[in-house]
Amino acid sequence: MLPFARVTIIGLGLIGSSLARAIRAEMPTVAITGHDARADVCARVVHLGLCDDVTDTAGAAVIDADLVILCVPVGAMGEVAAGIRDDLPADAIVSDVGSSKASVFAALAEHLPGRRIVPAHPVAGTEYSGPDAGFATLFKGRWCILTPPADADSADVTRLSAFWERLGAQIEIMDARHHDLVLAVTSHLPHLIAYTIVGTASDLEAVTESEVIKYSAGGFRDFTRIAASDPTMWRDVFLANKDAVLEMLQRFTEDLTALQRAIRWGDGDTLFDRFARTRAVRRSIIEQGQDDERPDFGRSHA
Amino acid sequence: MLPFARVTIIGLGLIGSSLARAIRAEMPTVAITGHDARADVCARVVHLGLCDDVTDTAGAAVIDADLVILCVPVGAMGEVAAGIRDDLPADAIVSDVGSSKASVFAALAEHLPGRRIVPAHPVAGTEYSGPDAGFATLFKGRWCILTPPADADSADVTRLSAFWERLGAQIEIMDARHHDLVLAVTSHLPHLIAYTIVGTASDLEAVTESEVIKYSAGGFRDFTRIAASDPTMWRDVFLANKDAVLEMLQRFTEDLTALQRAIRWGDGDTLFDRFARTRAVRRSIIEQGQDDERPDFGRSHA
Repeated sequence: MLPFARVTIIGLGLIGSSLARAIRAEMPTVAITGHDARADVCARVVHLGLCDDVTDTAGAAVIDADLVILCVPVGAMGEVAAGIRDDLPADAIVSDVGSSKASVFAALAEHLPGRRIVPAHPVAGTEYSGPDAGFATLFKGRWCILTPPADADSADVTRLSAFWERLGAQIEIMDARHHDLVLAVTSHLPHLIAYTIVGTASDLEAVTESEVIKYSAGGFRDFTRIAASDPTMWRDVFLANKDAVLEMLQRFTEDLTALQRAIRWGDGDTLFDRFARTRAVRRSIIEQGQDDERPDFGRSHA
Repeated sequence: MLPFARVTIIGLGLIGSSLARAIRAEMPTVAITGHDARADVCARVVHLGLCDDVTDTAGAAVIDADLVILCVPVGAMGEVAAGIRDDLPADAIVSDVGSSKASVFAALAEHLPGRRIVPAHPVAGTEYSGPDAGFATLFKGRWCILTPPADADSADVTRLSAFWERLGAQIEIMDARHHDLVLAVTSHLPHLIAYTIVGTASDLEAVTESEVIKYSAGGFRDFTRIAASDPTMWRDVFLANKDAVLEMLQRFTEDLTALQRAIRWGDGDTLFDRFARTRAVRRSIIEQGQDDERPDFGRSHA
């Protein structure tokens, strides 16, 4: 029993195209309709054969959908919602994959009043973008967080949960504000820091960019992966989840300042105590299947 | 023609044991003698058969060496140097693998006056520690930076370069102070930031550690790898390379504050501009063979 028979994906980048591929792989009888604001992306998706139909407008894509998933940067959600309002079937569920949830729900609710909105966030991705970067197994073993509003129909939540479970995800239901706080620390702050240090390293006078690149295996290269993520997507995330990000950033800065002081004053005990606490976190992440235990991320050393 | 016939490794953790394995693999006729201050590590190395001989004292290990490599935390270099002084052959070259070079040379020169000292730093490692974590190919394709003092014998530098090249490393000769500045940004600052954010995330009241772990695939997990590195090693690095680390930290903090301000004031253009600059750095790192181009560090998604 399929949770949905006709799924529409608006936005066919890394996540949207992975979704299309995963649906094809796991629920091959589902009809997939796609649309992207960029004509070249639509053409590429047609070429790759990822959807049964790719439409010229967002409205045309949703006409017979029973699930519509918006896979666009969070700052574009309101505009896309406005664009599908007149064509959206009354019983269709509208969801999304955005990294911030309170702001996305507000945008969707404003433009689609009275509609069945169940925001979602699959916590998965890579540093690559665009329809060629997607793959069918992206969501396997990852968490998908649903943040239904208080008055959501529980049957809708159950159907959307079943849909994501079919794609291999584990489901968590969460309040949107709590989601935004959790993701501020597990995703948004790490990206901001990674973007910052890669920028800092590029701007030095005494150390050349060529040196930064050559000796990046000392640790720096690990930061460059997430700092290679899509700039539009991340600009929107920081604007959309401002309060939670600023709160986490403040705490991070305080902690960094404490370590800076320990370095300045030669306080080795404080440094050791802080550094000795962090291994256990990584061990738990590996035990829970959220990362690989192979040394050095399993990079090739041959 | 082997650059050295009898190599002694003091400190048999990740790097020391990788060195023993790499020498065995690439120069199987070289006699390898090892010593570690921890009896359990010595016993393990004997069990693994990594060295031809494992001695009870550092002094006994160096008696007939023509190359001695100290693979201990940088804060322990002086003490180890003092411990081998009386037994070190007059023509032996003493080197090391420490992450900071000016302080290590000062410690070695103090305790081994007039000896042939050529400090080195192979920019390679993993987040695991101890003799079981090592492997023979760790140095392949990585850079090994030599920081000989101005009065070093150029023949010694040539021999040590040839030795590391045999293990698969690429050689760079650099002034010790410049090395310390370069590594402050490509290695020390990334580790400090990673340790900090993992600590920050563990200390939150509103977000549980269990949530941090579950949703770590959003970016956080990338930081936990280098934050799982050896705490003693890293305490010593920050104490030994204080000035360069504090300088890089100050620049990083300024850059982070600028992005914080952009978020607070909703300045999306500044965010986009900063985020759009960083992809090129990762592309160069991949092109130069210093990281893997597979998405998401090639993690399994099955």
